[in-house]
Amino acid sequence: MNKQLIDQITNAIKSVMPTDQEVYPLHTPKFQGNEWKYMKDCIDSTWVSSVGKYVDQFEKELAAYTGVKRAIAVTNGTAALHLSLIVTGVQPGDEVLIPSLSFVATANAVTYCQATPHFVDCDQKTLGINVKKLFAYLETNTFVKQGQLYNKHTNNRISTIVPMHTFGHPVDMDELLELAKQFDLKVVEDAAEGLGSFYKGKHVGSFGDTAALSFNGNKVITTGGGGAVLTNDETLADRAKHLSTVAKVPHQWEYIHDEIGFNYRMPNINAALGCAQLEQIPLFLEKKRNLAYQYNKVIKSIEGIEFFTEKEHNHSNYWLNAILLDDPDINLRNEIIQRLHKEKILVRPIWKPLNELVMYQNCPRMDLSVSKDLNERIINLPSNVWE
Amino acid sequence: MNKQLIDQITNAIKSVMPTDQEVYPLHTPKFQGNEWKYMKDCIDSTWVSSVGKYVDQFEKELAAYTGVKRAIAVTNGTAALHLSLIVTGVQPGDEVLIPSLSFVATANAVTYCQATPHFVDCDQKTLGINVKKLFAYLETNTFVKQGQLYNKHTNNRISTIVPMHTFGHPVDMDELLELAKQFDLKVVEDAAEGLGSFYKGKHVGSFGDTAALSFNGNKVITTGGGGAVLTNDETLADRAKHLSTVAKVPHQWEYIHDEIGFNYRMPNINAALGCAQLEQIPLFLEKKRNLAYQYNKVIKSIEGIEFFTEKEHNHSNYWLNAILLDDPDINLRNEIIQRLHKEKILVRPIWKPLNELVMYQNCPRMDLSVSKDLNERIINLPSNVWE
Ligand SMILES: Cc1ncc(COP(=O)(O)O)c(C=O)c1O
Ligand SMILES: Cc1ncc(COP(=O)(O)O)c(C=O)c1O
Repeated sequence: MNKQLIDQITNAIKSVMPTDQEVYPLHTPKFQGNEWKYMKDCIDSTWVSSVGKYVDQFEKELAAYTGVKRAIAVTNGTAALHLSLIVTGVQPGDEVLIPSLSFVATANAVTYCQATPHFVDCDQKTLGINVKKLFAYLETNTFVKQGQLYNKHTNNRISTIVPMHTFGHPVDMDELLELAKQFDLKVVEDAAEGLGSFYKGKHVGSFGDTAALSFNGNKVITTGGGGAVLTNDETLADRAKHLSTVAKVPHQWEYIHDEIGFNYRMPNINAALGCAQLEQIPLFLEKKRNLAYQYNKVIKSIEGIEFFTEKEHNHSNYWLNAILLDDPDINLRNEIIQRLHKEKILVRPIWKPLNELVMYQNCPRMDLSVSKDLNERIINLPSNVWE
Repeated sequence: MNKQLIDQITNAIKSVMPTDQEVYPLHTPKFQGNEWKYMKDCIDSTWVSSVGKYVDQFEKELAAYTGVKRAIAVTNGTAALHLSLIVTGVQPGDEVLIPSLSFVATANAVTYCQATPHFVDCDQKTLGINVKKLFAYLETNTFVKQGQLYNKHTNNRISTIVPMHTFGHPVDMDELLELAKQFDLKVVEDAAEGLGSFYKGKHVGSFGDTAALSFNGNKVITTGGGGAVLTNDETLADRAKHLSTVAKVPHQWEYIHDEIGFNYRMPNINAALGCAQLEQIPLFLEKKRNLAYQYNKVIKSIEGIEFFTEKEHNHSNYWLNAILLDDPDINLRNEIIQRLHKEKILVRPIWKPLNELVMYQNCPRMDLSVSKDLNERIINLPSNVWE
């Protein structure tokens, strides 16, 4: 039974891969635009560091593309999340609601604020936060005091929720914002994987109080390492920028800093790469969506698995393609992965649930059975922009 | 009196500046080597992100140049300090001895560890930690319990001392290491400004348990933004590298992280810049030392001020040149600065003592009168590698 299924899956995926590659990684960056030109301009002008025209240009173009008022370019997505959490008001001792299925940076950023991740279950439909289930959980496990939400069991304030748009697939933001409103939660979108994804026609990261993007080497566009804070709130934007530049107060020559800041500003040389990459985003997205279309076509007919497709209201960047086994079976999942690795197709499972990592295993959580189920079912497929 | 002195200083400094510039900043980077070649190679190979041959090469070459066993390339000097403090064992609640005259990042890095900066006075001779004065202070204000040093007044553990090599001038490391040994302190060198500086023939940053370098745009060499942890201890090096790469445990496909890590790894594209810059370091240092020689020549004859020169046993990179007024006089200092700014010579005072910044004004400290005195006397001069 399993052997036949594994053969079918392997053949289907191989049929989609180009034939001229030695190895098929999940992602490799593509540089076919003005990358050279802009970087050479940086070097020639000697503006490579944290002040420079490409940083400004990259921020303006990012804001325009994602439809927010302000974008602040920073060293990476983790820094963007950290700043987002601070400026929206996360305090030491708070709990922050995050999905149990995410990259570890989502939880780490909470910890950098001396706050505690509070793990929330995921949803079969979106792979993101399971809003309905969370609603019921919050109703019975929290209380409100002076307009603030508290965890009944720990007595800690729950200040913020972090919806993460898994693999680029948008969370149902209407539902999520409704819940946030009901429970007085700030919203920080982890849109690290979401550049080019839209919910009801609006770009992800434009719904929350703030959002974080990533331009790591594996993302839709790359700046080497990089990220951005997105927000429609000028005050939050100014504070995020201030914190990212060591909280230095403008002065002709004095070194005055008015709070504990960070060196999180994106260097100009990396922003130059970003400007060139952003120009190519329509092409990248077209190719990504086309690859997903091809996967879906060959996988649709295989019984026992499903290719994950965008849901109603969503336009996904298909940053990372995924198949789901009909039934949770971690052995079968691993067998499939092993077999594809033999073919040099470097598929991976979804992240281990964050609540299972040693440093997070004692954090508060709701029932996480859907996340566990998804973890035993999901395999991520190469999602490169080939040729 | 003052007017005459200000005229003399202005004329002396102007006489050293090249005549073809519109403005004279403290530093601008120079790219006259293989910068473009290596960066183009990065783009062509698509290895721009945090894995790639230039990161490895840069680390090897840095270690060789500074004479340490291991260098770990990270996003900036602040990240290098943060990791250095963690791996040498700074714990939440600890106090860390740092000079009151430093860039704010030295204190911030301590705070990121949930430790407290404990401010130490500086020395007229080195501009770094005043070791003799600190010795006397520790003798009367600390006690030892189970081989650990404690602050008598706060009862907090004092775990670590951070000598900073101000403007590239080495601290007297023999004295400092003797003190550290006597009081069981770990040593983290803040060598952010010290690339190319040597104490008794050994590169700064090679004396402590760990050290931090910076490759910010204003430093001796630049990677856009960047830094490095230096250490002779393989275990500390491995841990710093592990922490800088999100504490990810090697596995073919599983995402396992075994502690709270960071995204602090230097991207390959920035390391490519670093490799090209490092090749030019002998040239940069020669020019910097030559500029200092010229400053000294024209300033020597002016009564009332002194040009800061390297002390016995030291070979300084003269990263940032400085003059000192004979007597503390903040008004005179500011008048000189103002006058030179009018001439487009963008001189600056040394940093405001960190203990005077709002977020650090309640931190423990010893008498800081020398630092205060130095703050009212020092003016930093343009230290560019011209032409
Ligand atoms: C969901 C998620 N959050 C946060 C991050 C952190 O971004 P970065 O790697 O740029 O720090 C990533 C990407 O790595 C991610 O996938
Ligand atoms: C003394 C000192 N420490 C730390 C730093 C921090 O380095 P970076 O700016 O690369 O984070 C700097 C430089 O900016 C510095 O001068």
